[in-house]
Amino acid sequence: MKVEKLVGDRFKERPSDCKIDSHALMLRGGYMKQVCNGIFSSYTPLRRITRKIEQIIREEMEAIGGQEVLLPVVMPASLWEESGRYSSVGNELLRFEDRSNSPLVLGMTHEEAAVQLVREYGQSYAKYPFMIYQIQTKFRDEARPRGGLIRVREFIMKDAYSFHTSQEDLEQYYEKCLQAYKKIFARAGLPQVITVASDSGLMGGNVSHEFMLLTPAGEDSVAVCSHCGYGANVEAAECIVKNERSQTSDELTLVHTPGIRTIEDLCNFLGIPMEKTCKAVVYQKNTDNRYVVLFIRGDLDVNEAKLRNHLGEDIRPAVITDDCGLKAGYIGPYDLEGDFAVLFDRSLEGANNLSCGANIHEYHYTGLDIERDIGKMEYHDFSKIADGGICPKCGTPSITISRGIELGNIFQLGTKYTKAMNMQYLDKDGNPNYPVMGCYGIGIERLAAAVCEAHHDEHGPIWPLSIAPWEIHLCCLRPDNAEVKEAADKLYEELQKQSIEVIYDDRNVSAGVMFSDADLLGVPIRVIISPRNMKDNCLEITTRDKKISMKATFDKAITEIKALMSELYS
Amino acid sequence: MKVEKLVGDRFKERPSDCKIDSHALMLRGGYMKQVCNGIFSSYTPLRRITRKIEQIIREEMEAIGGQEVLLPVVMPASLWEESGRYSSVGNELLRFEDRSNSPLVLGMTHEEAAVQLVREYGQSYAKYPFMIYQIQTKFRDEARPRGGLIRVREFIMKDAYSFHTSQEDLEQYYEKCLQAYKKIFARAGLPQVITVASDSGLMGGNVSHEFMLLTPAGEDSVAVCSHCGYGANVEAAECIVKNERSQTSDELTLVHTPGIRTIEDLCNFLGIPMEKTCKAVVYQKNTDNRYVVLFIRGDLDVNEAKLRNHLGEDIRPAVITDDCGLKAGYIGPYDLEGDFAVLFDRSLEGANNLSCGANIHEYHYTGLDIERDIGKMEYHDFSKIADGGICPKCGTPSITISRGIELGNIFQLGTKYTKAMNMQYLDKDGNPNYPVMGCYGIGIERLAAAVCEAHHDEHGPIWPLSIAPWEIHLCCLRPDNAEVKEAADKLYEELQKQSIEVIYDDRNVSAGVMFSDADLLGVPIRVIISPRNMKDNCLEITTRDKKISMKATFDKAITEIKALMSELYS
Repeated sequence: MKVEKLVGDRFKERPSDCKIDSHALMLRGGYMKQVCNGIFSSYTPLRRITRKIEQIIREEMEAIGGQEVLLPVVMPASLWEESGRYSSVGNELLRFEDRSNSPLVLGMTHEEAAVQLVREYGQSYAKYPFMIYQIQTKFRDEARPRGGLIRVREFIMKDAYSFHTSQEDLEQYYEKCLQAYKKIFARAGLPQVITVASDSGLMGGNVSHEFMLLTPAGEDSVAVCSHCGYGANVEAAECIVKNERSQTSDELTLVHTPGIRTIEDLCNFLGIPMEKTCKAVVYQKNTDNRYVVLFIRGDLDVNEAKLRNHLGEDIRPAVITDDCGLKAGYIGPYDLEGDFAVLFDRSLEGANNLSCGANIHEYHYTGLDIERDIGKMEYHDFSKIADGGICPKCGTPSITISRGIELGNIFQLGTKYTKAMNMQYLDKDGNPNYPVMGCYGIGIERLAAAVCEAHHDEHGPIWPLSIAPWEIHLCCLRPDNAEVKEAADKLYEELQKQSIEVIYDDRNVSAGVMFSDADLLGVPIRVIISPRNMKDNCLEITTRDKKISMKATFDKAITEIKALMSELYS
Repeated sequence: MKVEKLVGDRFKERPSDCKIDSHALMLRGGYMKQVCNGIFSSYTPLRRITRKIEQIIREEMEAIGGQEVLLPVVMPASLWEESGRYSSVGNELLRFEDRSNSPLVLGMTHEEAAVQLVREYGQSYAKYPFMIYQIQTKFRDEARPRGGLIRVREFIMKDAYSFHTSQEDLEQYYEKCLQAYKKIFARAGLPQVITVASDSGLMGGNVSHEFMLLTPAGEDSVAVCSHCGYGANVEAAECIVKNERSQTSDELTLVHTPGIRTIEDLCNFLGIPMEKTCKAVVYQKNTDNRYVVLFIRGDLDVNEAKLRNHLGEDIRPAVITDDCGLKAGYIGPYDLEGDFAVLFDRSLEGANNLSCGANIHEYHYTGLDIERDIGKMEYHDFSKIADGGICPKCGTPSITISRGIELGNIFQLGTKYTKAMNMQYLDKDGNPNYPVMGCYGIGIERLAAAVCEAHHDEHGPIWPLSIAPWEIHLCCLRPDNAEVKEAADKLYEELQKQSIEVIYDDRNVSAGVMFSDADLLGVPIRVIISPRNMKDNCLEITTRDKKISMKATFDKAITEIKALMSELYS
């Protein structure tokens, strides 16, 4: 392939709307083009990268017994009604109708289709365990696509589904898959990817993990313990709070607080720390708009994923109207009357001497002792772990919160789908049972973008050899010099003969243009043939990361290139 | 891979709703499963076949300079509005809206997306020619999916788009692509595929070809000249009709024809041949429901594709109402009054002594001489070529009509899309021009089904080695015999070490079950290890098509297998 014929434009200026480097570099390098919000086309360099990633994934899936299948992008709504997700999943699931008004959906994940495919096959225990996977286009109607390929609406995904006759067997396979994922990310150039506990969300099940590349460009928040290595998506991390109850409880006292509507204002007004306040955060359920009033210690934030999981349904921040019965800015747990769901975070368990809203306009209480003044309540973990927080695993206050890109996820689904869709097998004794499922996903383009995010400089991506669009970038400087051109053409042919993937730049352009294009294409090994080196019967071999730069004579060129390749592949 | 672990069921009974063999065999062999009307999932054997087909196509596309890209499955309607196809294409184009009510379409073809991708790149003549291709899921909301994988709604397609600065350059490339297609079909096991002229239909442009596998299972009709080899889809074949005008014209005479409503009845009633009648065929335009009355010689059928192309819009068979002004059963060209589009087929040019409807209930005319009685009309070719018809190329009456499966198509699109979407380049003199486009498609699953249709027996498919799901099917008969099992296991390992794709059946089942499963999987080379052959220190190597059956000693096994493989690959 010649650079001259490569479809796609490369350019210098960083597009102003790119917030992260991978997005900017992949536009500047002619890797992709936006078609509309969250939908991109891939040019050849990106397609070559994604195909190599697909191949790495295939090999690792086959190595753990995976069988490649292909499930449809477009599915009948009836399939999703079987699992119950047709109604439970939000707008990310794109619903529409065909020419005969049959309702369809665009596949955003394929648990239903996987069960449909194997429901009859899996009728005997003897068939288990088995795993099927596919590499296929997915569509998720994301509300806010962003970051170039980091969060898009259409993307290629590898999704795998395993089926087992026991939770123990699933757990063993889950661990195998976790190890396979680590290998995949390492082979794609990201050995630093960490595994963290995650929230299962709309997938169901209760054990799940995410694979995170920690980077400021990420859009997820990850809690990592610097002491024991524990890691979890902030959405999933248990929040440990130590409440210190004052020895004596003050009297519950109504205080006039004109214009004081926030916890900050209240603390300033009363001269108390935020830990001594009880904050109300109000949501509404999406299904029936009913209000949910959640009380939490004033210094903490609500983790909405935990709230959603607790309620088993979706919620949104409330709109507090004049007649809803809630006094905005003055909501408190004492004497709160109305048809609200009222919840208490664990941070309030046993607390006393709290200040809180009085449910009267411009009044607060001080001296609240929940158990004394309201009664014995149920407390749950609704709060968000924060920097410096206590590690739920080792108990030391060593949590740091980092940004991360989620590159993959794995779920222990249990029998959620097999039960709902009535997939059964007969066990050894002839008794019917529901198989236990696991599912395992990796977004292909997002992985490519993450590799770029982790491996680039200001001039362009620095692709690892394993997923680089080509292995060698051959530059012929001054192709108008017949001797130089002949030598470069000959090497180009020779590399192709050796089945080495080479992109060849023999354009009559300046070294500056040639090298900046090469930087944007990010091929890890560059071979330069120029009049200056020709004099010494040499060519130059460098690496894109600038760590290696050497000369080789023409007769040794192929040998040296191959040696460097096998070094970089290992 | 072991047969024991292969997901998918194989069974004996032909499903009653399968009209063609490939459909039945691919269900019986565990290749696919229907999800809903026209939408299938692929099990591993089919996915392995389609991936091999994809790879063959990739190699041949790269060999003619193609660059692999990836265009989106879901596209904004605005892109299709640019080309005008958002309104001109029928219900096959699935239209829907996303969460923010933006109209989208599911890609059934990607001319628009291809132009969008390269519109800026192709601004200078120096960039031309170039070709991009993709292998991607397509969705066409077919009204009548049928034949298993022959006509489905969702499928994988290779689609390619080439861009040129002149019609001549397009034509050269078009020929190259035609040759590449022949290679692809030959490599996939179908060297007998023929190239025929086709109707360009909704794609636009005026030169196009289809690649047809002639088989009774096909759903297209193909006209082939046994004399000169000319071939065309019946939709596209010019119909040559020789009119013999009688020497004298009879008088135009009104005849009472009670109860006579069809051409057959009329011929019986009057005792005349169908060639002496003028038949009315009535359509309505889809856009405005206006009636189109087409007159054609009574013995001929209308080719609706030609009518559609002539009108430049879609039509449907008319519903003739009482008050529409047409007298059903008695429509004729003489004294036909009303707001109808009236057309004449070339078969009526210069004809006389015709019988036809009189536009009066229960009356016909005899003795019609169109030119004398109606005037000088325009005649166009609207009729369908028939068996025994005249070849439009060599003029001999040697046309035979066969059924065929369309496996691919190629189109010279001209500037239809580049003009509509304002893609321009500057030529050498700095003048703006619209590039000329070609497009080239192959349906992957349909090709797999067609290979099965062409290569099977009553027991199952006989896959060519080039696209077979595995290269070797290893059967261990009587795995309960330790010596047999050990030898088979050893060969299984050895074959895998040699990177030979092997499916291994070591189930404790009868030879009958084992072989019927092997027949259904259709792997071209079978290796059998059994107690009987073990005695002679031999194994058996046979081919699925039964042409080769031989014995080899264990130490020669790999050598013999490899020799047979290279014979079958060539």
